[in-house]
Amino acid sequence: MSIQDGQGKGTLDVAHYFDDEGIPAKIPYGGTSSRNPLAFKYYDENQIVRGKSMREWLRFSVCYWHTMRGVGLDPFGGGTISRPWEDGTDGLENAKRRLRVAFEFMKRLGVPFWTFHDRDIAPEGATLAESGKLLDAVVDLAVELQSSTGISCLWGTANLFSTRRYMNGASTNPDAHVFAYAAAQVKKVMEVTHRLGGQNLVFWGGREGYQSLLNTDVRQELDHMAAFFRMVVAYKAKIGATYQLLLEPKPKEPTAHQYDYDAQTVICFLKTYGLDKDFKINIEPNHTTLAGHCAEHDVVMASKFGMLGSIDANTGVAHLGWDTDCFMADPQQTTLIMKTVLEQGGIAPGGLNFDAKVRRESTALEDMFIAHIQGMDAFAKGLVGAAALLEEGLLPRMVAARYASYAEGFGKRLAEGQASLEECEAFVAEHGEPRQVSGSQEKFQSIFNTYA
Amino acid sequence: MSIQDGQGKGTLDVAHYFDDEGIPAKIPYGGTSSRNPLAFKYYDENQIVRGKSMREWLRFSVCYWHTMRGVGLDPFGGGTISRPWEDGTDGLENAKRRLRVAFEFMKRLGVPFWTFHDRDIAPEGATLAESGKLLDAVVDLAVELQSSTGISCLWGTANLFSTRRYMNGASTNPDAHVFAYAAAQVKKVMEVTHRLGGQNLVFWGGREGYQSLLNTDVRQELDHMAAFFRMVVAYKAKIGATYQLLLEPKPKEPTAHQYDYDAQTVICFLKTYGLDKDFKINIEPNHTTLAGHCAEHDVVMASKFGMLGSIDANTGVAHLGWDTDCFMADPQQTTLIMKTVLEQGGIAPGGLNFDAKVRRESTALEDMFIAHIQGMDAFAKGLVGAAALLEEGLLPRMVAARYASYAEGFGKRLAEGQASLEECEAFVAEHGEPRQVSGSQEKFQSIFNTYA
Amino acid sequence: MSIQDGQGKGTLDVAHYFDDEGIPAKIPYGGTSSRNPLAFKYYDENQIVRGKSMREWLRFSVCYWHTMRGVGLDPFGGGTISRPWEDGTDGLENAKRRLRVAFEFMKRLGVPFWTFHDRDIAPEGATLAESGKLLDAVVDLAVELQSSTGISCLWGTANLFSTRRYMNGASTNPDAHVFAYAAAQVKKVMEVTHRLGGQNLVFWGGREGYQSLLNTDVRQELDHMAAFFRMVVAYKAKIGATYQLLLEPKPKEPTAHQYDYDAQTVICFLKTYGLDKDFKINIEPNHTTLAGHCAEHDVVMASKFGMLGSIDANTGVAHLGWDTDCFMADPQQTTLIMKTVLEQGGIAPGGLNFDAKVRRESTALEDMFIAHIQGMDAFAKGLVGAAALLEEGLLPRMVAARYASYAEGFGKRLAEGQASLEECEAFVAEHGEPRQVSGSQEKFQSIFNTYA
Amino acid sequence: MSIQDGQGKGTLDVAHYFDDEGIPAKIPYGGTSSRNPLAFKYYDENQIVRGKSMREWLRFSVCYWHTMRGVGLDPFGGGTISRPWEDGTDGLENAKRRLRVAFEFMKRLGVPFWTFHDRDIAPEGATLAESGKLLDAVVDLAVELQSSTGISCLWGTANLFSTRRYMNGASTNPDAHVFAYAAAQVKKVMEVTHRLGGQNLVFWGGREGYQSLLNTDVRQELDHMAAFFRMVVAYKAKIGATYQLLLEPKPKEPTAHQYDYDAQTVICFLKTYGLDKDFKINIEPNHTTLAGHCAEHDVVMASKFGMLGSIDANTGVAHLGWDTDCFMADPQQTTLIMKTVLEQGGIAPGGLNFDAKVRRESTALEDMFIAHIQGMDAFAKGLVGAAALLEEGLLPRMVAARYASYAEGFGKRLAEGQASLEECEAFVAEHGEPRQVSGSQEKFQSIFNTYA
Repeated sequence: MSIQDGQGKGTLDVAHYFDDEGIPAKIPYGGTSSRNPLAFKYYDENQIVRGKSMREWLRFSVCYWHTMRGVGLDPFGGGTISRPWEDGTDGLENAKRRLRVAFEFMKRLGVPFWTFHDRDIAPEGATLAESGKLLDAVVDLAVELQSSTGISCLWGTANLFSTRRYMNGASTNPDAHVFAYAAAQVKKVMEVTHRLGGQNLVFWGGREGYQSLLNTDVRQELDHMAAFFRMVVAYKAKIGATYQLLLEPKPKEPTAHQYDYDAQTVICFLKTYGLDKDFKINIEPNHTTLAGHCAEHDVVMASKFGMLGSIDANTGVAHLGWDTDCFMADPQQTTLIMKTVLEQGGIAPGGLNFDAKVRRESTALEDMFIAHIQGMDAFAKGLVGAAALLEEGLLPRMVAARYASYAEGFGKRLAEGQASLEECEAFVAEHGEPRQVSGSQEKFQSIFNTYA
Repeated sequence: MSIQDGQGKGTLDVAHYFDDEGIPAKIPYGGTSSRNPLAFKYYDENQIVRGKSMREWLRFSVCYWHTMRGVGLDPFGGGTISRPWEDGTDGLENAKRRLRVAFEFMKRLGVPFWTFHDRDIAPEGATLAESGKLLDAVVDLAVELQSSTGISCLWGTANLFSTRRYMNGASTNPDAHVFAYAAAQVKKVMEVTHRLGGQNLVFWGGREGYQSLLNTDVRQELDHMAAFFRMVVAYKAKIGATYQLLLEPKPKEPTAHQYDYDAQTVICFLKTYGLDKDFKINIEPNHTTLAGHCAEHDVVMASKFGMLGSIDANTGVAHLGWDTDCFMADPQQTTLIMKTVLEQGGIAPGGLNFDAKVRRESTALEDMFIAHIQGMDAFAKGLVGAAALLEEGLLPRMVAARYASYAEGFGKRLAEGQASLEECEAFVAEHGEPRQVSGSQEKFQSIFNTYA
Repeated sequence: MSIQDGQGKGTLDVAHYFDDEGIPAKIPYGGTSSRNPLAFKYYDENQIVRGKSMREWLRFSVCYWHTMRGVGLDPFGGGTISRPWEDGTDGLENAKRRLRVAFEFMKRLGVPFWTFHDRDIAPEGATLAESGKLLDAVVDLAVELQSSTGISCLWGTANLFSTRRYMNGASTNPDAHVFAYAAAQVKKVMEVTHRLGGQNLVFWGGREGYQSLLNTDVRQELDHMAAFFRMVVAYKAKIGATYQLLLEPKPKEPTAHQYDYDAQTVICFLKTYGLDKDFKINIEPNHTTLAGHCAEHDVVMASKFGMLGSIDANTGVAHLGWDTDCFMADPQQTTLIMKTVLEQGGIAPGGLNFDAKVRRESTALEDMFIAHIQGMDAFAKGLVGAAALLEEGLLPRMVAARYASYAEGFGKRLAEGQASLEECEAFVAEHGEPRQVSGSQEKFQSIFNTYA
Repeated sequence: MSIQDGQGKGTLDVAHYFDDEGIPAKIPYGGTSSRNPLAFKYYDENQIVRGKSMREWLRFSVCYWHTMRGVGLDPFGGGTISRPWEDGTDGLENAKRRLRVAFEFMKRLGVPFWTFHDRDIAPEGATLAESGKLLDAVVDLAVELQSSTGISCLWGTANLFSTRRYMNGASTNPDAHVFAYAAAQVKKVMEVTHRLGGQNLVFWGGREGYQSLLNTDVRQELDHMAAFFRMVVAYKAKIGATYQLLLEPKPKEPTAHQYDYDAQTVICFLKTYGLDKDFKINIEPNHTTLAGHCAEHDVVMASKFGMLGSIDANTGVAHLGWDTDCFMADPQQTTLIMKTVLEQGGIAPGGLNFDAKVRRESTALEDMFIAHIQGMDAFAKGLVGAAALLEEGLLPRMVAARYASYAEGFGKRLAEGQASLEECEAFVAEHGEPRQVSGSQEKFQSIFNTYA
């Protein structure tokens, strides 16, 4: 059965767009020996892993912006991707048809969640009020499609970076008028995300940062950003929304320095302004690598600080210095990420959102399926490996053994903050030089790789 | 007059080492038209700038490790630098003669401060206690030399990274015995720095970080690091020391991830563990660039968060991915750094410490003078430019004008956190779209460059 | 006098666009003490330096694409820059008015050259033939404006990367049809550049490279690229054009690997295919830094291999991993570049082309003037410094002294390839260990900086 | 059976060093389900793949410098690794015992080749002649051990970078005396490598590059380097050696720019000086990534230019900017590398040399085994995957299909250089716009990953 309602471009039976290209009504599980790019090799949604289904652990989500609105623009050229359902306008009918296609796509792919920006799903009107009405009209349909497909909203967010209005930032804009405009736009997104049952609300500080220190008062801008978020917290309470608020770090691009550089910079900000109880963090590994870390770093750091709320499941290209939003394909990375997720008991109410896009040259319709399938398989493989790693317990025991000296005796007193420098001096006077212990990194890796 | 006491290698008249190479007894001020590499072009120590002498504003310091102990080792080769005062041993006499040479060098250069690690100035003994005695013996002489030359101690620090003992970290070592050893070593450094009248005590987390997430419990290690610093704070109070405690960020190298990644990561750590009243930050621009920021970023960020304590006045090579510890030579960078220092009223009790070294191939004695002269001139030029920039007020007024909308009316209410999203919506309903304002980055740069 | 011809949007007096914003009819020379961003501090076009005017040495050129067609698009947002002369269409009248504005801009700025892509100056038609006609119509006007203003064409080039047609490359496209299309487009550009008296013809391999090694036959693609250039060489001879052919290296972006990675990679290609007599190289320092070199590296390398044809006078942001096309502002870099230009006797028939753009947020009309003025001043300062450096001869003599041992005796025989390993062995047996000589890098820098 | 001869530290039975740590006499094949870090999961030396054994295809080699001489030095600390066979001297007896241990290690590991620098295997004497004698004495033993174990010499090389003598370069040193010294040293290495039956001779330009353009005459230095290699070619002919000469690219570190930046830069050099028939290239992927390429790039490029001679089978850490010499563990990378090797018919007379080292903290004896086992498995897995990929032919056919248009008709004429721009224009006039073809990158990757 396809998603239809009898209106629009021809009919609203959008299934034919995919049928015509030979896309199956549901992407099948083909098993690990399959070479079929349109079948899953690892993702079998109902397979039980440590007591929950893959579907429940992984909480995959499709993002609307790249998948439905990406046309292949880059700094050196215009769009390359034309979809048959697009009528070339920025009108409401087109927006609705596109939304139907999105749900048809997600249904075939078998993902339980989607994410969106306000300006992705609906056209921007001439005034803020008009934009709000257009957005409402599309959200009406989204509520209906969510209901008919069982696909839920993982999170919504406001696009506060694409129009020229926000070229100097939104909440950090030197002009209070722009700040107010952004706040008003966010108010609406909070409302519609609430209405859609969105489980989170994300803030990616698109142009919150500086291009040059010479024309910027960085501290004043951060103060404003904090004031902005305090209004968000207040309004969330007012409307009774229960979604988790999330900040998404990024170190640079489009600005030369984005204020939300990485997980710990965001925590620094939240603690400085007393907002750390109200927000968690949405980690995007491609941003993590742009900040100079290994891809898994911020997932681990945010989790260990109790702040990991959700993951934008993408990756970059190691030797390129910009955001490429590729689908992650490296099982060593996905195994470590899923190990972290398992260790913290799951990623809910967050999920694994594919903030990733097909390459500009991947213009065939099947490419958008193949890309997501590859991404889902990579994380499914990671989940299975991480679960085995934790169940067998070999590596966790090896890690615990490294720190055993803090579990008792003087080491325990040190760890618990009960000792003094003088006692340490006395301890060394008595016990002398410590013996050397190999870090055994290759051994840990060697064993880890048997799970990855 | 040279530093001597009648003992040691021949006599303890160390002046001849420099005299023999034609180094003047005091590096003269030659003025901006001089081509003489052994004369200052900008640094005129008694020149008054905004009410204080250059000497007082800049608080230059020579570091002992690079300048007196650097021999040109790199990962691909052994030492290249031989100094005539070295007798080839790691003995106490050699250490003392070297210290005399250091003070003679600083005297000729005309810097008011020096910095050291415990293991730079004195040999390490067979036991911790013996190391302490050797250190005391050298510190005795240092007290004397400080007194006779008027050169003061900017800060001391413990070397917790060079010996194999610390290969897996010091306060973050998985072995509590190593943690205790490091604590005992720090206790001694706190005592001798206090005795030397050191104005700060620095912690650079040499090997506090991870090489691999696979064998590391990052949160446990951070907990231990915090416990370590709490002991330091307690002991500082106990001995009545008044120096400022400083943490020095570095993002990577030697470990794949250093916990003290950058200024905001350090603030995140300090706030997480309630240590942010006890520590400030020592910024090294070369580390800042390795973290993916522009060279001035962390100086500005730390200052704006009220946490800038001191500066390790060096720089990297833009296209190299490791710590090169070059002397900063770019007046655009030094002008922006000194503007930040002037804006916060000075860097005291910190200073500008040349944590920088001559190149491995710069093996002549004059090279160590020329390198420092170049670095001092770069900051002196920056000071003069920044002072003019602030006095003329053109750029500060342009910056203030950008933010003028927050100074009154609705903007003021926004900045002060008195408004709500609903009010913002109403404001936009009334006032509509903001007008576009150029960021004018090139204009700011163009004017800034006339000062730099 | 302004450029006008009595047609177009209102009248064709385009001068008022600039007059209205208070831009002087000719940017004046204000001298080094000026703070006026609309005056030159160093560039005084008729000032004589080493026997030629600044104008002759520097051969500044404005690029059409950034300066006249840039609207501030970036991967995260749409255009921000609106110019009053634009009527919002992609029509011929708009193209012509824009061209008049460009020449008015260049006249006021005082640059002697301009550069263009075919698709920048004229609209693309429905067919190649139609595009050609549109181009001819604009070129007619360009010929006229060149004549009336005395501004010449430094070079033309074909845009073989912006439309989706070229998404998989032009001459390296896997589809021969696209290859043929690109060839036909280049044919036309060769003709119109010839007609405009262009002194060079540039090829920047916009999408000649690979996104993935998995779907690419790299050697076949390079073979095709060489076949393409052979047709260009043949056609240049056929039409009697005398312009210099230039290849422009870039290492990455938009593709993950651009075949023309850097100067030496291009020379490798040219020599492999026997094209090294037909092409020289157009160096863009921002591309050089993206390839992991210091900004000046490829200018020096290309020059020393006799292949430096022209320079795209821009720079990047050291900590950003993408092409930012900033105006170069660092006198240390411009002094070294101009030293190289002086040493090879000048850059003609090439020039210094400002392939640089105002920031996306710099939306005021004056910003485009200020940015170019800043860039011109930086190179003028570099020229003056480099000329003094060469005239005084101090640094060149120091360099020569380093290599003096090859100027006579056994060293000369070695340099000239007349010696053997056996003779070297005998030489060492006789002369033993070489003495150590300091590289004196800081000394060279210290003296260099007095000129920069 | 262990390697012994009845002399040395205790006896010359070196087997006990490994026996004592529980290292098996021969590392067994454990199969893919093993978690034992001391067993192979993929490398089964006699397994036949496409008609040859794994041993023959992979030609694994152990490098002497990291594995036998690495002590864990880094820029921030001294050695950490102590081996029980070391007596703490730099004497000949120690060198010989160490060599026996090396062969015992390789025997247990099961590798057929080794590589060395002159100064790794033998102490440096007071004079060049004395160094030669010491080297001869060690080579005598190496000949014997090669014979008794069946392990062969893959290549030898001269260490022209570790001593201060070469701080300013060897063949590119500004001092002809140093050039001559390096030449004499190379002469000896050529002789002993010949005597050992070395199948290649490698030149890694350790310090051939510049630290600063200001004190360097880059072209003169390159001329000297070429002169140096011409002497090498002549002497090779004279002594009748048949080994392949190899240059090894590296972009930076220790110098700020190494002349042999990457594969194509080396080819540029070789072609410029007419040396491209005499040398091939030894690719080290860690160097490739430091040059800003993906890890496989230079292997592919060198191969496609017919210049791939051997591979230093290591890798870097993606977010670190220096040479880490890790063992490659990523099957996607090894599969692509082995595909390239298979496509060119094998890597002989080169091999896969583990120019890789255990981490500084991996101080246990077993770590050196585990690290190599992991590396060997990664390439064995890559070999198996690449062989299947080529045999099944799915991906190669997909690639060929992308380029099919050049295989006949007008496309064939284009590829063969028989067409002109005019003909291209006519072709487009007739055939119009090309149709868009997806690059299908994700599809290629998706299928590729089923083999990796």
